[in-house]
Amino acid sequence: METKNIGLRNIPIADTKISLIDGEKGKLIYRGFDVLDLTKNSNFEECCFLLLHDHLPNRIEFNEFTTKLKEARAIPEQMQKNMKNWRKNAHPMDVLQAFVAALAGYYDEQGSEKEISQQRAINLISKVPTIIASWERVRNDKEPIQPDPELSHASNFLYMLTGNKPDKEMERVFDVCLILHADHTFNASTFAAREVASTRAHMYSAVSAAVGALSGELHGGANYEVMKMLLDIKDENNATNWVKSRIEKGDRIMGMGHAVYKTVDPRSMVLKGLSKKLSEKTGLPWYNITKKVEETTSEIMKNRKERDIFPNVDLYSASVYYMLNIPMDLNTPIFAISRVSGWAAHVIEEKFAEAAPKPMLYRPKATYVGKYEGPQGCNYIPIEERK
Amino acid sequence: METKNIGLRNIPIADTKISLIDGEKGKLIYRGFDVLDLTKNSNFEECCFLLLHDHLPNRIEFNEFTTKLKEARAIPEQMQKNMKNWRKNAHPMDVLQAFVAALAGYYDEQGSEKEISQQRAINLISKVPTIIASWERVRNDKEPIQPDPELSHASNFLYMLTGNKPDKEMERVFDVCLILHADHTFNASTFAAREVASTRAHMYSAVSAAVGALSGELHGGANYEVMKMLLDIKDENNATNWVKSRIEKGDRIMGMGHAVYKTVDPRSMVLKGLSKKLSEKTGLPWYNITKKVEETTSEIMKNRKERDIFPNVDLYSASVYYMLNIPMDLNTPIFAISRVSGWAAHVIEEKFAEAAPKPMLYRPKATYVGKYEGPQGCNYIPIEERK
Repeated sequence: METKNIGLRNIPIADTKISLIDGEKGKLIYRGFDVLDLTKNSNFEECCFLLLHDHLPNRIEFNEFTTKLKEARAIPEQMQKNMKNWRKNAHPMDVLQAFVAALAGYYDEQGSEKEISQQRAINLISKVPTIIASWERVRNDKEPIQPDPELSHASNFLYMLTGNKPDKEMERVFDVCLILHADHTFNASTFAAREVASTRAHMYSAVSAAVGALSGELHGGANYEVMKMLLDIKDENNATNWVKSRIEKGDRIMGMGHAVYKTVDPRSMVLKGLSKKLSEKTGLPWYNITKKVEETTSEIMKNRKERDIFPNVDLYSASVYYMLNIPMDLNTPIFAISRVSGWAAHVIEEKFAEAAPKPMLYRPKATYVGKYEGPQGCNYIPIEERK
Repeated sequence: METKNIGLRNIPIADTKISLIDGEKGKLIYRGFDVLDLTKNSNFEECCFLLLHDHLPNRIEFNEFTTKLKEARAIPEQMQKNMKNWRKNAHPMDVLQAFVAALAGYYDEQGSEKEISQQRAINLISKVPTIIASWERVRNDKEPIQPDPELSHASNFLYMLTGNKPDKEMERVFDVCLILHADHTFNASTFAAREVASTRAHMYSAVSAAVGALSGELHGGANYEVMKMLLDIKDENNATNWVKSRIEKGDRIMGMGHAVYKTVDPRSMVLKGLSKKLSEKTGLPWYNITKKVEETTSEIMKNRKERDIFPNVDLYSASVYYMLNIPMDLNTPIFAISRVSGWAAHVIEEKFAEAAPKPMLYRPKATYVGKYEGPQGCNYIPIEERK
């Protein structure tokens, strides 16, 4: 049997300047900057600029960029109307995938191909939160809240979602979450965006496909599963037994382990701190429960002498989002609010990369293992003679 | 420099039983059957069943299948309303990508995961034509025409598009076009569908992504370009000089040459016959002009002693669609009417393949060629100190 490159694991398929996962050292790098530095010093808007432009903005660039972002937040009135015609039980990711594709019908950006892509990147970064917050309101029979240009990207989203302006601490927690999820090299959704863009399809089309890929439970759905686990455990004292019984049954513990990081995922450390902070602030037990899940899983795995297992990005983000009062089925859409910046950067790199080797339309091979009898293939038999 | 698998050309990434391109022999095989046999003996509905079920239906299976297809043709009233809220200049492929994703919001199919996917396949095969025909009506300020269950798949689409029921000859021409475009192994749109499905995202999500990939000019847009060329040439007597001058300028002649077929694309031969038939029927010059383009290009290339160049599937399909009175910017959506059957079959294979090697979430590697200075990456400088 021919060896297949199943799932393309470890197959290098392109050059990128956007991000690097250093799995041995446990580092995530955006355009040369350690994501941990960015969580300490930067904000999501600045990281978006960095991902799109390959350098940190100076003051003038930053002001221009954030002004454009704020101006692009509202979605067209006709789209708001259409949203109200959806069935209220539609999944937010389905709504998002459809509305991102629909943006193409409402905008005629002008300029060079690359300038148009840059404008569309801004439009998407700004409108994805509005689409999600609007849908949360509409499905609960409430009027969507219009964006507030006085607020930062993070703060404005939480405001549009709930109608309440978050305090500085909540705003910063969410801002850091957005920074942490902005890019992660060639994951499945980013690859979907690049694959679609490789045909010269436009930015909205490519990002809509990425939303589709993110909606799959093997990709974006994991922190929803983590939160279901935490709610099921309910109390810190139940955690050890809960985890033990699951592992004995052969189940995987959600939020633990990652295919690329061989050591601790740097994002999980930051999220752990945020979960602790919010648990202290709110008096809720989720940080302590999550920590027990982490410790118990690690200990059992160590005793079994299997390889060390570390929390991944989903373990602590679940409780963080829960304590920010974000409805659980918005966890994956929230991922998209951040990752859309990375998708957009990758689409631009895919379409406008200047250095060799330049990307080409993706057209892989498949190995045909089906029927093929005789020089003419299967014999066509008239329908009445078939069994 | 590390060798990259640019565009994944010639990289086998999965097993498939759905279709095979035998580039040396110039054969296209669906589930073991030569596509030329299918164009002679079969119809599009039967080919859809074949692609989805790996065998030709018996009479009972065929009747059940076509009944389900007919019952699934209409789109929900709310979707029809929403369509009227789009700007009339929206591109049909953008409308299609958004509406395919939106279907997920309107249907709660029941059954096993695989049964649900099969039901969604039928829903998509039936509704993609309705979405396209409805949009053609709506953008021209006309009421959409409701599907007619008395008509075949091919005939019903042409009826919904124009309001006129096509005669048997027109119906058969379009039916054969649909058979010819139904599948073509791992092309860019099919790969996009499989990539999205590999995350366990659902059928609508994956097929919406495929529509996005098909919209790119390197993939689905070619026969539109061919028709523009034919309209520019206008008269058979201009064709030779037109082609010569373009080739001298170093332009590619649209519709000529294919990356996979080393000999004539079997589909192009069938389409050539259909173009001839329609030109004779309508008295229009498009077949003769296209033939001159083919002959002149082949001759020039032969004289240059380059490799033989053959017409691809787009060369003759352009004039066929034009003579079927299909608006030119619907050429790519028409491609989707047929290819949706292949996409659906590939999504099912990606998600439910039983034999090893089973597909896995696609997560390729990228080679980071960006900045990464020192152990901490780039140094974060406060914004006021940046140039």
